[in-house]
Parts: sequence; structure tokens; C-alpha cells
Amino acid sequence: MVTRARASIQRVRPTVLDGRYPARTIAGQPTRISADIVGDSHDLLAAVVRTRRQGTRAWTDTPMAEEGNDHWAAEVVLDPMGPHEFEVVAWIDHVATWCRDVAKKAAADTVEEVDLAVGAALLRARAVQASGPDAERLRRDAEVLTDRRQPIDGRVGTATADDLVVIAARHDPRDHATTSTRSRIQAERERAGFSTWYELFPRSASSEPDTHGTLRDVIDRLDQVASMGFDVLYLPPIHPIGVAHRKGRNNRVTAEPDDPGSPWAIGNADGGHLDIHPQLGTLEDLQALIAACASHGMELALDIAFQCSPDHPWVTEHPDWFKQRPDGSIQYAENPPKKYQDIYPIDFESDDADALWTALKGVFDHWIAQGVRIFRVDNPHTKSFAFWEWCLGELSREHPDCIFLAEAFTRPKVMYELAMRGFNHSYTYFTWRRHKWEIEAYYTELFQTEVADFFRPNSWPNTPDILTDQLQTGQRSMYVQRLVLAATLTANYGMYGPAFELMWSDARPGAEEYLDNEKYEIKRWDVDQPHSLREVIALINRIRHQHPALQQDRTLRFHHIDNDQLTVYSKRVGDDVLLMVVNLDAWQTQAGTTWLDLDELGVDPHEPFEVTDLFGGGTFTWQGAANYVELNPHVTPAHVFHVRTHRRTEADFDPHA
Amino acid sequence: MVTRARASIQRVRPTVLDGRYPARTIAGQPTRISADIVGDSHDLLAAVVRTRRQGTRAWTDTPMAEEGNDHWAAEVVLDPMGPHEFEVVAWIDHVATWCRDVAKKAAADTVEEVDLAVGAALLRARAVQASGPDAERLRRDAEVLTDRRQPIDGRVGTATADDLVVIAARHDPRDHATTSTRSRIQAERERAGFSTWYELFPRSASSEPDTHGTLRDVIDRLDQVASMGFDVLYLPPIHPIGVAHRKGRNNRVTAEPDDPGSPWAIGNADGGHLDIHPQLGTLEDLQALIAACASHGMELALDIAFQCSPDHPWVTEHPDWFKQRPDGSIQYAENPPKKYQDIYPIDFESDDADALWTALKGVFDHWIAQGVRIFRVDNPHTKSFAFWEWCLGELSREHPDCIFLAEAFTRPKVMYELAMRGFNHSYTYFTWRRHKWEIEAYYTELFQTEVADFFRPNSWPNTPDILTDQLQTGQRSMYVQRLVLAATLTANYGMYGPAFELMWSDARPGAEEYLDNEKYEIKRWDVDQPHSLREVIALINRIRHQHPALQQDRTLRFHHIDNDQLTVYSKRVGDDVLLMVVNLDAWQTQAGTTWLDLDELGVDPHEPFEVTDLFGGGTFTWQGAANYVELNPHVTPAHVFHVRTHRRTEADFDPHA
Repeated sequence: MVTRARASIQRVRPTVLDGRYPARTIAGQPTRISADIVGDSHDLLAAVVRTRRQGTRAWTDTPMAEEGNDHWAAEVVLDPMGPHEFEVVAWIDHVATWCRDVAKKAAADTVEEVDLAVGAALLRARAVQASGPDAERLRRDAEVLTDRRQPIDGRVGTATADDLVVIAARHDPRDHATTSTRSRIQAERERAGFSTWYELFPRSASSEPDTHGTLRDVIDRLDQVASMGFDVLYLPPIHPIGVAHRKGRNNRVTAEPDDPGSPWAIGNADGGHLDIHPQLGTLEDLQALIAACASHGMELALDIAFQCSPDHPWVTEHPDWFKQRPDGSIQYAENPPKKYQDIYPIDFESDDADALWTALKGVFDHWIAQGVRIFRVDNPHTKSFAFWEWCLGELSREHPDCIFLAEAFTRPKVMYELAMRGFNHSYTYFTWRRHKWEIEAYYTELFQTEVADFFRPNSWPNTPDILTDQLQTGQRSMYVQRLVLAATLTANYGMYGPAFELMWSDARPGAEEYLDNEKYEIKRWDVDQPHSLREVIALINRIRHQHPALQQDRTLRFHHIDNDQLTVYSKRVGDDVLLMVVNLDAWQTQAGTTWLDLDELGVDPHEPFEVTDLFGGGTFTWQGAANYVELNPHVTPAHVFHVRTHRRTEADFDPHA
Repeated sequence: MVTRARASIQRVRPTVLDGRYPARTIAGQPTRISADIVGDSHDLLAAVVRTRRQGTRAWTDTPMAEEGNDHWAAEVVLDPMGPHEFEVVAWIDHVATWCRDVAKKAAADTVEEVDLAVGAALLRARAVQASGPDAERLRRDAEVLTDRRQPIDGRVGTATADDLVVIAARHDPRDHATTSTRSRIQAERERAGFSTWYELFPRSASSEPDTHGTLRDVIDRLDQVASMGFDVLYLPPIHPIGVAHRKGRNNRVTAEPDDPGSPWAIGNADGGHLDIHPQLGTLEDLQALIAACASHGMELALDIAFQCSPDHPWVTEHPDWFKQRPDGSIQYAENPPKKYQDIYPIDFESDDADALWTALKGVFDHWIAQGVRIFRVDNPHTKSFAFWEWCLGELSREHPDCIFLAEAFTRPKVMYELAMRGFNHSYTYFTWRRHKWEIEAYYTELFQTEVADFFRPNSWPNTPDILTDQLQTGQRSMYVQRLVLAATLTANYGMYGPAFELMWSDARPGAEEYLDNEKYEIKRWDVDQPHSLREVIALINRIRHQHPALQQDRTLRFHHIDNDQLTVYSKRVGDDVLLMVVNLDAWQTQAGTTWLDLDELGVDPHEPFEVTDLFGGGTFTWQGAANYVELNPHVTPAHVFHVRTHRRTEADFDPHA
């Protein structure tokens, strides 16, 4: 109860909400840790943040510095990947306080013998903690301070020597220190922070007409996908597909005999979540695909969808994992009045939850054992949050290089919940943010609030489930606009191809969905059509790879422009500053005058600076906050400016190289 | 580890930072409690907040309602005064979910027998929890639902009857419920939320010239103070005053023999913090003063200053409570190069901290035993935060009607720290917030962020220590402006009188301090001077007492006006809406056009509404957001409008009555 601690530590960041969940950072990259620290009285404080990998004993101390308004911060680098923890420790530094006060008294010429005696006692106490030259120096200074044979001016000089505080600080016993509550932070691998995803259906990968594609066929597609700059290849579920109540083309209730069914209706006599659909190939084929991806600088991502077709082996082996109805039937998925008789949801209130959780985690374990490390998880918001916290927690400890993307197109708080419980990435509302105010409000919430500590958006302009009215126009300028927004607003983005690059825009009337959806049928894509966006995609991805500013999210800032059809935003890492101007009107030329936050861009208001359009080409010399821009969307809907002041000396980037 | 809980609860409010500290509310008044609550899937949630007085067993449940964006809230009333705690509990309401789904299926005419059988099973399970008519109704409905002899339409009607969900909810077993972490909240008495303070030096209270005033003399002043509408009378320390190093008039280093010394240099041969300065009177006199205050509707507040003059009994009895210097002397207070040899600070790093803490708390105990419940605490930020947390925590448990005001004119985070550790009120930077942007930024931080949960500002335009340059002008319009701001921005405010009401403005050159400061000498005040502000003070305090809107802080909102010298803000409780317009320019007439937030005022944009100036007089009919205002500060620097729409029917207020 009674304590002599005199410092207080509040608002330790990053701490996710009540501290029950870990924050996220990237292993090996600088991570900022901050806190409000106050002490009683005017005595000087010292503070460190101490970090360690969870499960280890030794802490690493990093000194913190005060930044104003009692806010202290330090940058730490967490390595290796995996769960880390940290605490902030603060205490009164009596030597530093004494040195400051003696200096003030010296300036007023009021130093007394007793002031020096106070300091000598403090230095002697530090000397006891020290050894070697430091101990010697502290003892010698203490002697000098109280040596009345020497003139007081010289002794005051000893007290106020610059290096004395530094040496003494190394041996501060940290008496009566205050320690914050402990926070957790997950150090993830680089690709969790920066990645570019491409989704394709392997069964459509054959170059032969009317042929079911295979995992081997996908290997033949890799050259083309890699040439566009993607580094994650994501496949919809590769498991056996249910037969009972199989959906036909265009989601028809009854399938024709040759309809392949939806890959998300998982399980039949050939097996379930641990098996590969025989028409796609074998485990060896999967291994070959994983290896081929690696040789293209890419990585394979699998889709895990925890739901079962009525033919799934679990339905007969573990009927109690599903909700039983009074008539003995199993409850199929419903969104009344819609019925999905081809899918049985898992019942997370099952009395056999132990075995169920173990089996579900076993699905990840199985594919991890095959070498897969990236998973897109289907509809995680219809499964227990507690399950995800446990399952992803275990997996991230055992395999800290795993990345899980939550396919949760749902309400913001639910998406945040899943991120807190362990998902590294989340699909977002990007697709439905079109107006300038929507884009600014959404990304400001994601990157400028506590949300940034745990939530990583992965922006997709389209998915097999989503073809918005904007893209239904088939308008090239609209596709390029959405591409540039996705690729430059967020460090992680992806697309469903080849539908996107070929601007496929056939919609089911009245819906935001593709007509003749690939979910229910095999397609044959002619990816070499001349109107393909492949070169534009390759260009924007090249810019992303060359510019660290686009490989992170936290420095995103919106700038003012006097036209609501134009949005202006910047990203910055050190000297690498990019400034995007996007025309949100896909049909008309729009012009406006910016009011740039020059501080944010690191630009001197009184000096000209250069902006080079890495995307559309051209270099302009600008000065000050107000600069004129004009974009004809049919030429290019966006500028991606590289901002350079004459002060900068780093090599120029040329994405066209 | 494995749980079947499916709801998640985050961001429970009010929770002070990491939940270690209690929030504050007023006993008997509605307190809003909210949380973000999400469930997996689309099943419907139910939630309650449960509250109890700390130390009791039984919880009181209050149902919460969803307000949009997964934010749930409830209003609770916490009674009696003292520490309370609360938790939020949420779970899936399976009956409500089933009722909703049946209604949807009914609309699409797709209800099947098995749907009704599912519901019957749910209702039977609820019936087991219930008794009496509820149990009967649930059983009967379950029978009806599965009675195939009856037509299905009628049975669907049973399933979707409005009251069924309500009855079933009363007997929800709350299976697999999620409970939030526990939060604490202190229910304080009404005067903690709304109070009006008047400070006077009792030694200056005599009506006889050249006479040391007494506590009995203060009784004779009460009529006048009460007539101005004050309800807290605060006295500087009433203890014996030190003789050693006593400061003379105007803080001179050496006192003349008849100089009375500073009341904050506490302790001499007559005693210390438990004693009364003999020239002021006796304990009986104090009791008489306390009783006289009560009969005037007022309450006495004492000043507790934990510091000692060199003559204080503790200095000889407990030298280890003070910092010893190597030469055997005790460290006096310093702010280098300034020295305060008349004051010894307490050393909170003392090895005898146990006895020290007990003795300090004993000072409060002593005066509480005399009937005092309000304390102004001097310089709390130079004492250990942990001490305050313990001391004020114990005291608020033992005497929940105590109110402690922190005299901490220091950095914002330090003021917040003291509030978290237990101070009910805090002096603020009000005095130095003059420009519109400063006022708006400061009070928005105080009342529109988490700070509002634990920090209660008490605004003072002057104190014996502070006479700002604004008030040094002696300009009446400036005094009235600062009075109206203090009295209407914050529910708690006070002044140092009679200096304020008499607009005493003699300043020590170059300082924000009074010349011939009352801290160091006895004054004789002629409070009946004709230029006194007493009537103006009485008026604004009458308005405060008649308008609930001014008796709380959380609804303060600033409105736009196109003149930076005018500030416009409103406060609202239910139908009681006040709108203040203050001219911050004490010399010139200023005019402007408002842009009112009509929603905030509860005003229809298409209907005229009336604003009656309770302060300056006059009634105006306004309409819409834009209204012209003009204030000549020499007539009145402020409007205090009562806003009335024609819809309102409550009796009019007349503060001039």
C-alpha cells in the first residue's frame, strides 16, 4: 500500500483497448512506443521501455525521451518474429535533478557548500553501483565537490560537466521506480505489412477449352501474374465439392450434371478440409505449385472456409458439431428468407467444443505442414471470436510467419474484433468508399486512431462476390482510378483476376455481383486481350516496390483541394515522399488548387520543389501550399507524384526502368 | 480456454484509462454507461449493465439498447454516495433471433413445421426458468406452435406476437454470456457537480480597523457572501503561523515584528496542522462558523497545505519526514535560484513513509471530525500521487460526502493524474485561456473527451496568487466578462473576494500578482463600495441556480460565429437550453452573425424561436442558424440567452424575481 514511487505512467501505446490483445508491428522495423509520464514536484524523470520476446526472461532497455506535454517515446526494433511484450519504467533521476539545480544556482551565484555536499553523497551512492572507470570518475568527482581547499567555482564546474549526468545515469539504481502494466505486441514478417494479392480459380487455369484446370495449370500462369508485380497468389478452396443440394450456374437451386459447384461448399465422399479436389490434382501438385510460386518471388495463399456441404465426412462423424433441429435434420445456412441447403454452418455452442476447436485448428496445421503460410479465411465473423483468439494465438506462436486475412465484409466493430483476436489482415469497406469525404473519414479512422495499432486493411476493388456499380460500367478510367486508390491508400491490396485486369463487367441485374459467376462455373480467360490493364497494374506495383512510403500505412495524410471530385493524399517514410492526386470523376476532367500541408511533405514553404509523376509522367516545379492540378480521366485519372526538394540527395527512382 | 461465449464487449465507458481508477458521477443522477458489443453471426444480442455499491454482493441489472454502429448504452442511477462498480454482460438471445427469423419467413410465406418446432423447444426451455403466469404462457405457446391441428398461419401469429420476446427475455438463462472487465465509478454528492466558491481571509474579516479578524468575525460576513449566491466559503489555512524565516509584507525576506506572516507557513509553538491559530479563535468558534454557514445554505471549506514552517512540531518530532542535508540541516523549499527558507517540504521518499502517510491522513480525519467536508488542497502536485490515491481513497470510502479541490496550476497531464488519484475538483488554466481558440480547444478537451469521466474543473478568475494582466486593467467589462465565462463554462467556479467584487487591481510590477498581497498582511475591505460587482455576481449565480443546464458540464458545445472576438456556446439539460454569447474584447463593441447548431439547441430550423437574455435583459425572436448579435462591453459583455421554442410548455424562469 505505502510506496515511495513518485512517477506515474499512463496511456502506454501501442496498447490495444484494455490490453488483453496484442498490437501488431513488423519484426526488424522501428516500432514507436510511447507513454504519458509525470512525476510529483519539479524533479527530473528518467524512463525506459523494456522489451522481450514472450517466454524469454531477459529484458532489453531502451531509453525514452520527453517530447513535450509530458509525452515520452522511444523507438525499438522487435526481433525475431513472434509475440513480444513490453513495459515502461520511470523514476526520479536525483543526480540529473541536482545537476540542473546547481547549474541554476551557479547562474545566480548562490551555490553553497551544502549544495555540493548533497551532490557528493549522490555520486558516492552511484559509484557503489558502478565499477571500472565510471566508478573511479564518480568517486573522484565526489571528492572534488567536497574538497574545500579548491575554489568553489572550479567545483561547480565539476558538478555541471556535461558528461557527469550521462555517466551517473548508467548506474542509476532506479530507486522507487514505477512500472507500467505490461502490453503485448506481435512482431510479424515483412509481407504482413506490405503485400500484393492476386486471386484466381485454379479450375479455370487450363489453356484448353472445356477442360477442368489443375494446380499444374496454375504453374503455367505464374509468369504472367508475377510480371504484373504480385507477390501473393490466392486460390479459392481446393477441397472436394459437395454434391447434395449443389448449386448450379448463376447460383441456381438445382445443378446440371456437369456443373462443378461452388468451391465453398466443402466436402464429399472424396474427403473434406484436409483433402484436395481430385480434378485439381494431388498433394504433390500442390507442392510443385508452392515451389513454382517461390521461384517467381511469390507465395501461395489458401482459402479456409469453416463450413460443410451435407456430404462432408464431419457431418456423419460429428453430427454434434452442427445444430440439430427437432425433426432430426441438421440446420443449413439461412439468411431468412434465403436458404443455403448446400451449406451446414458449424455450431460453436456445440457441447463437443473441445474436439471441434482441435479439429478446426488441425485444418490449418495440415496445410501449414505442406508449406502454406498465408490463409484467406472465409466469413470469420460467423464463427466464435474466442475460437479465433485461441486458434490464431496458438498458430502465431508455433508459426509466427503465418498471415491470416479475414474475409469479413461486415460492420466496422466486428472487423476490428477479428483483428484484435488474431487476424493479420482484413478486407475492408474500400469498395464502397467512393466520395472524397468517405475515403478521408475511413482511412483517417484506420490509420490515425488506435485502430492502426491492430488492424491492417487489405483493399480489393473487386472479388468474385463483389462487382460494384462503379465497375459495372466497364469504364477503363474507373478501373484505373480504383486500382490507384487501392494500391496507394493501403500497403496491402489485391484483386480478383483476370476479371479485374480484363475489366470484366457483366453484372447480374440489380445486384453488385458478376453474371455467370466463376464461383459456379469454369471459365476460360484470354489474358492476352489488347485492352488488358496488365501494364498499368505492373506499373503501379513497380512504384509500390520502389517506394518505401507506399509499403506502410501510418503516415497517410489527406491534403486540402478545392474540388470535391479530387482527392489529394501523401505517404512518407524518411525522405521518400509520395503525393497522390486522384480524380474521382471517371468521366470529366477535373481541376483544382491544392492547399498542401508542407510540413507533412518536408517541404520548405519558401523554396521551389519538384514533383515527378511516376504514373502519368512529367515533372513539375511547385512552390508553397497552393498548386494547380488538372486530370482528364481518359488520359490518366491519377498523379502519383514523387516529391523532391533540392535538399535531398538520394538516388532518383525510375519505375519505368 | 475453450468457451462457448459468442458475444464480445469492448470500450466500456466510463472507464478511466486502464481501469485502475474510478470514474466520477453524481449520486442519484442519471449516469450513462456504454460499450461496443458484437456477436459472431447475425444472431441477436441482449445486454445489461450490472451495478452495485462496492463491498455489497447483489447486482442491479439495467438493460442496454443498441444505438447504431454496435454501440450499446443504458442510463443507471447510482445511489448512495460512495464507490460503485459495474460490468456489462452480453449474450445471444436465441428466442429473439428465432422470432425475427420466423417473421421474415412469414413475410416470404416460407415457414415450415420444423421452424415452429425449433421455437417450441426454445420456449419450453425458458418456461423451466420461469414461474407463475410467464411459465404458463411460455408452455401454452410452445404447445400451440407444435399443434398441427391448428392452421400454420395462426401459429405463426403466436410466434410473432409482440409480447412473446419480452416475456421470454425475462427468463433468459443467459447461456454462454460474456462479462466485461469490471469498472469503478465514484458516486459523489450534488455539490461536487455544482458549486460556487468564495475565498476570504478570516484575519481580514474584522470590521474594526487595525484588528486581527477572527472566525467569529467571518460569521458577520456570511449575510453578504450568501446574498451573492455562493454556497462554499473557503478559508486559507487557519493554523498557527511559523516565526522562523517568516516573510514580511510583499513577500519580503525579513518580517517586521507586527507582520502576521503567510498562513501557508504552517506550525509554531502553538501547534501545527491539527491546531487553530489562537488569534483566529478556538475550536468552538470554528463550530459556530460551520453552523452559521449551514444556516446560510453554505458550507465551510478548509485549506490543507502539507508543508511545515521550521517551527512546526513535526520538525523536531519527526525530522526523518524531511530531507536531511549532509550538514545536518533540513532542506527548505527551493525553485532555484529562489529559496523559501520559511517552508520545509515533506519528503515522500522518507524511510518512515508509513507513519508519515498516517499522520497526513490524520489531518483530514481531524477536521472531518469537526464537521468539515470540503477541502482545498494546496500544491498537491508536489506530493506523492500514490499517497493521494491511498489517502483520498480511504477518505472517500469513510466519508463519501467529502470534496477535495486540487490547487494544482500545472501541466495538463499532472492535473489529470491528480483527478484520477482522487481529487474531485481541480483549479484549471481558465485564467490563461482568453482567446476564442484557446477557450474552445481547452473546454472541448475537458468535456468532450475521456477527461470528462474523471476530471472536474473549478474555474477561478482570480486567486490570492493570481492577478492576470487582464484584471490588472481594473476594467469593469473585463471583470464581468471573466465572471460570466467562469460561471457559465463550468458548473463549479469560485473567486477570491472581496478582491474580485471590488475589482482590486494593484499589481506587483512585472508580475501576475497582487501588490500588498493579503497573504502577507491583514486587510480591511469596504465591501459596500458603490462600484462593487456584488449585484452582477448575485445575478449570474441566480441564473446558475435556476438553470439545470448550468449545473453540469458535459453538454457544453461551441457554435460558430464569424468574429474571433465573440464566443458562442450552449449548455443543455432536457428542455433547459442556455446559449451564451461573450464579447472577449473588453473595450470595443463587437458584432457578428452566428451559425448555430440547431440540433444541439433542439430548435426546428423552419420555426422561429425565442431567446431571452437572462443577464442583459431583452427577448429576441430568431430563426435558423444565422442570427445577428452585437455587444458593447461597456453596457454588457455577454448575453446569457434562455432558448425557448414554442413547443416548450414549462414555466418561464425569471432570475430577476
